[in-house]
Amino acid sequence: VLTNPRADRVRSIRALSKRPVRERTGRFVVEGPQGVREAVRWTGGQVREVYLTPEASVRYQADIVAPARAVGVVLHEASPEVLAAMSDTETPQGVVAVVSRVVPALGEVLSTRPRCVVLLVEVRDPGNAGTVIRAADAAGADAVLVSTGSVDVYAPKTVRSTAGSLFHLPVIPDLDPVATLRTLAAHEIRTLAADGSGETQLRDAHLSVPHCWVTGNEARGLSEDLLLRCDDQVRVPVYGKAESLNLAMAATLCLYASAGRRASGASAL
Amino acid sequence: VLTNPRADRVRSIRALSKRPVRERTGRFVVEGPQGVREAVRWTGGQVREVYLTPEASVRYQADIVAPARAVGVVLHEASPEVLAAMSDTETPQGVVAVVSRVVPALGEVLSTRPRCVVLLVEVRDPGNAGTVIRAADAAGADAVLVSTGSVDVYAPKTVRSTAGSLFHLPVIPDLDPVATLRTLAAHEIRTLAADGSGETQLRDAHLSVPHCWVTGNEARGLSEDLLLRCDDQVRVPVYGKAESLNLAMAATLCLYASAGRRASGASAL
Repeated sequence: VLTNPRADRVRSIRALSKRPVRERTGRFVVEGPQGVREAVRWTGGQVREVYLTPEASVRYQADIVAPARAVGVVLHEASPEVLAAMSDTETPQGVVAVVSRVVPALGEVLSTRPRCVVLLVEVRDPGNAGTVIRAADAAGADAVLVSTGSVDVYAPKTVRSTAGSLFHLPVIPDLDPVATLRTLAAHEIRTLAADGSGETQLRDAHLSVPHCWVTGNEARGLSEDLLLRCDDQVRVPVYGKAESLNLAMAATLCLYASAGRRASGASAL
Repeated sequence: VLTNPRADRVRSIRALSKRPVRERTGRFVVEGPQGVREAVRWTGGQVREVYLTPEASVRYQADIVAPARAVGVVLHEASPEVLAAMSDTETPQGVVAVVSRVVPALGEVLSTRPRCVVLLVEVRDPGNAGTVIRAADAAGADAVLVSTGSVDVYAPKTVRSTAGSLFHLPVIPDLDPVATLRTLAAHEIRTLAADGSGETQLRDAHLSVPHCWVTGNEARGLSEDLLLRCDDQVRVPVYGKAESLNLAMAATLCLYASAGRRASGASAL
């Protein structure tokens, strides 16, 4: 059992809370049983190491320990103090994993003929990025694309807000937005800007062909240039006195409209 | 211009970031131009004082200063340091208001024959509570009810996440959930538990009569007792590998399903 919170190994894992360190090493940290379980289950080979408290290794025997061993992941027992020192939160609930980022190529993902994807342009809030990844997963979307200038999807807070969905569908960061719109067009994927002042109401959006929802920055939305490069501009209606919806809510409604269209051919949910 | 961040007046406003102080004084703080503007616009009489930097009082002359004066609100100029010392955030964007909480009675709100309301039971995250209030507003719902044991809706973080919607529709905190379900039934408002394992899919929910969405705690959901006391249990479908949606996303989808039903009689958005 590792008990020294100041050990080099602990420090080097804690350092993964910094983006440059994640980028240099190609690794990131997943905290808590839900995230670690989903990482082991869906991306077994990418999980480098799992650290658990003795108590957690009993409790998560079937959920994490056995499946991790089965795919050859190295497991370590560590004290709660060591786990707290490794992670971004005070209470990683007894489990932390170090995972290698493996990013699929955009062309590869698009060649699988996705029906619905989402492109986040300059999303800045880790909670928003994570929530949209979770919503995309829940709505059965096929991939999440993230532009340059966005929050790092491997930041601890983003990883936490995905609630494991980061490991359920391809998430491709660091994309140039203009080049990505071109690539989507080349793959005959219709691009729909989610924009509060869009001309098309969500209910009237053309969702029966493969499409990509494009959402902009929390404060500024999408640039005029990107708006015009999309095939359509779609607004989620606001019925009350609110000026707008927040980014994650609007994206969730758009993604579920797509899901509903797929499921029923007509009704939006 | 107030320049002393350690003045008694500044300290007493800063103290409103603590729930017991808010409850004792019946006042809370609104930070930033959007929230203050909406507070002045929709609840003029409840705004006690507005503090602005000299720069902000020029910039928000038409949006905040003139409308506040028109309803007799006292305005003060203060340095950026004073505003930062008053508020919970580092950057209140030059404007802070002190507002009196005025809570309407549940019976009064229900006697206006609302078509759709939402009841949050033991919601614990300020961002979730604020986001649901914003979503309820955007979806044209008529009121937000909040149970005892929930986060304080007047906490700075909740107020911020409502983006002004706190002032757009009645928000009633501190309600006993069981008594509230009885009161709703007495007003012939159908209660729909939003629950991941509900038998009724959202698309099939009966939304053409007055109804109340009931959502539970982030981690535990609704208790078995409350689930059974509701008229129906409704689930938002999950299409991908995600275990669930988060509370705010699920509530947003439910509230928009209600809005869509009202708007079109059929389609959910």
